[in-house]
Amino acid sequence: MMNWDVFLAPYQQAVDEIKIKLRGVRKQYNMSSTSHTPIEFVTGRIKPISSILDKAHRKNIPLDELETRMQDLAGVRVMCQFVEDIDAVVKLIRRRKDFEIIEERDYITNEKRSGYRAYHLVIKYPVQTIGGEKKILVEIQVKTLAMNFWATIEHSLLYKYSGEIPEDIIDRLQNAAEAAFRLDEEMSQIRGEVLEAQVIFRKKEEEQRSH
Amino acid sequence: MMNWDVFLAPYQQAVDEIKIKLRGVRKQYNMSSTSHTPIEFVTGRIKPISSILDKAHRKNIPLDELETRMQDLAGVRVMCQFVEDIDAVVKLIRRRKDFEIIEERDYITNEKRSGYRAYHLVIKYPVQTIGGEKKILVEIQVKTLAMNFWATIEHSLLYKYSGEIPEDIIDRLQNAAEAAFRLDEEMSQIRGEVLEAQVIFRKKEEEQRSH
Amino acid sequence: MMNWDVFLAPYQQAVDEIKIKLRGVRKQYNMSSTSHTPIEFVTGRIKPISSILDKAHRKNIPLDELETRMQDLAGVRVMCQFVEDIDAVVKLIRRRKDFEIIEERDYITNEKRSGYRAYHLVIKYPVQTIGGEKKILVEIQVKTLAMNFWATIEHSLLYKYSGEIPEDIIDRLQNAAEAAFRLDEEMSQIRGEVLEAQVIFRKKEEEQRSH
Amino acid sequence: MMNWDVFLAPYQQAVDEIKIKLRGVRKQYNMSSTSHTPIEFVTGRIKPISSILDKAHRKNIPLDELETRMQDLAGVRVMCQFVEDIDAVVKLIRRRKDFEIIEERDYITNEKRSGYRAYHLVIKYPVQTIGGEKKILVEIQVKTLAMNFWATIEHSLLYKYSGEIPEDIIDRLQNAAEAAFRLDEEMSQIRGEVLEAQVIFRKKEEEQRSH
Repeated sequence: MMNWDVFLAPYQQAVDEIKIKLRGVRKQYNMSSTSHTPIEFVTGRIKPISSILDKAHRKNIPLDELETRMQDLAGVRVMCQFVEDIDAVVKLIRRRKDFEIIEERDYITNEKRSGYRAYHLVIKYPVQTIGGEKKILVEIQVKTLAMNFWATIEHSLLYKYSGEIPEDIIDRLQNAAEAAFRLDEEMSQIRGEVLEAQVIFRKKEEEQRSH
Repeated sequence: MMNWDVFLAPYQQAVDEIKIKLRGVRKQYNMSSTSHTPIEFVTGRIKPISSILDKAHRKNIPLDELETRMQDLAGVRVMCQFVEDIDAVVKLIRRRKDFEIIEERDYITNEKRSGYRAYHLVIKYPVQTIGGEKKILVEIQVKTLAMNFWATIEHSLLYKYSGEIPEDIIDRLQNAAEAAFRLDEEMSQIRGEVLEAQVIFRKKEEEQRSH
Repeated sequence: MMNWDVFLAPYQQAVDEIKIKLRGVRKQYNMSSTSHTPIEFVTGRIKPISSILDKAHRKNIPLDELETRMQDLAGVRVMCQFVEDIDAVVKLIRRRKDFEIIEERDYITNEKRSGYRAYHLVIKYPVQTIGGEKKILVEIQVKTLAMNFWATIEHSLLYKYSGEIPEDIIDRLQNAAEAAFRLDEEMSQIRGEVLEAQVIFRKKEEEQRSH
Repeated sequence: MMNWDVFLAPYQQAVDEIKIKLRGVRKQYNMSSTSHTPIEFVTGRIKPISSILDKAHRKNIPLDELETRMQDLAGVRVMCQFVEDIDAVVKLIRRRKDFEIIEERDYITNEKRSGYRAYHLVIKYPVQTIGGEKKILVEIQVKTLAMNFWATIEHSLLYKYSGEIPEDIIDRLQNAAEAAFRLDEEMSQIRGEVLEAQVIFRKKEEEQRSH
């Protein structure tokens, strides 16, 4: 039988480390005060055991191949204020030397049929365990707040209907997807103004602090 | 001269305590698994010193009257998934016995001219300091994610233009406000479906855990 | 059957709140820079379910009377640098208005036969749950680091031998208790010097920060 | 002029990352339940600016050479329950592949004249900053709780007397050092018993959880 606690421990560790690393990026941007941080906030989670079992069953993955064949056991989400920030975050992830990128999927240029939008990266992250180094797959999703908002809703519904959402609800979901998309569009419109405002804001605060 | 660290310490303490209390509410809901949590997440902050000084100057408040006349030195934000949750959160805050509500302002029924929407409560919160009990004013804002998203943008712009946002940017802001509002509307439309889905989801997880 | 998660949730909440409150006391002392903080650090825990069951069995407490008859389901530990600080912490706890003290036990003046030393307070702490206010018993232990160190050892041994530690090991335990006691004595001897040093240290840091 | 916030940011980041990594080691041991964790707890800190300036002045280090010549700008402390654990922690640090060890100093075999005991490692730790990878020196100190307790006292006194502690206080310090040493000795004596007890304890808890 599978000892889930022991199996999932390095995944949890990887998530904890990556969270602290990407939050550090945010802090560095805020400190520099000359440029806007592309990272609004970072969350992370281990896939719940019930979802692992469901997905393994659905995709026909034997439990002893989870490690190599289920790429989202460990997941990190990076939320951005503007669609334009997503690209900056991806570049920043590509420049790092503490893990290797295995795969990238751009669901922003190529929106999923359901309306799902986000940029996904799968990385191979080295965790130092008490039994030696172990390389772990971690999925990083980069999204705007509006994209994320919509995605959590879709996820709940997919779950409820075991993947088969009824037509009328799909319609409503698509309306919500459009509303989320429009919010992102409007935000991009006023982006330049806001960025300037934030830099001014941060500088004032800094001056204050040094008095 | 003012020692800001010492002056603001009980405000920071109040924010820390209220954050842990309202996050506890969220946990209790998640544990009960029969009803949806109206609290999505909770953040808190002390007003930056530069903003305190600006506001004091603007509103003509002498620094030795900050305590009684500036109600948002300590601020807590409760974010909700659906507009309908805001009402549930307000009721829940009214039922608590660990602080007193001084004032309520409903900017949802009565949207501000700018497009700002949220429910505000000002509470008097008792902090036990090393010099004895001290009652602190704290502003609690209850909003949806879309409302909050829009408000942070407006806040940056107001700051940049010292309160006088140019006409053309106001127009764009209102478009964004409408997009945020429409997203909330669409979300409310599929709310019933999502709530059911989340309860099912949580029950499955629980069963899993007990195996 | 008992739902432990639900039963223990308000206990966890009480522990979390008290931890943040007592850590806040520490911060206030450090900020004031004129007096030494009597609180070195604060930890908290919920009694593990296995220990609850063992103790309930040993003391003949039915599970539906746990709430009123088991006083240490929720436990908070306050660690002090010097024996003299314990008294200061106890006074500070007595002055608070956010809970009620039910009982005090002074195992410093009256050391337990085993060598155990600490000051215990049992408080009735009001937690605001989603079902209304609930008053919870919490045990606060105030100790020096040396006392705590020794106590964790004794606890492990009591557990191993189900309360009946063999004579020769009891002898060794008492030697360790004496060594812990002597360390506390020696620390008290240099206490005055150290306190002065710490105040000087903190003032220098503060001056630095304001440059 | 030096911008300390910006200069120290990668050091803080390194400390945060190493703390989460070594705490993860502790968790892994606790989970495995067959062996005792050699790590009791982990703390970290950035050297206060006033201490950096003092030390730079004392050791004649120009501020633009701090990076290479001051090895303890970033410091991590690993606390152990038993003297015997220190060796296990050092081995475990040597096995890691996420940083390079630059230097080791064994003040346990070779106690300092003052009575100071601990095992020090200086590592070169790669931080991914927004300007690229940066290798940072970090000092890791491995100690028992008693060693640490004594060291914090000595540190305060050294500070107060600017490095020249008067003879009579040195005598008292040495008495305290001996008391700390004796406590460690006594603990080692009962170590075997305690380790067995802790493993039994953990197994019981685990069984409980799986019911």
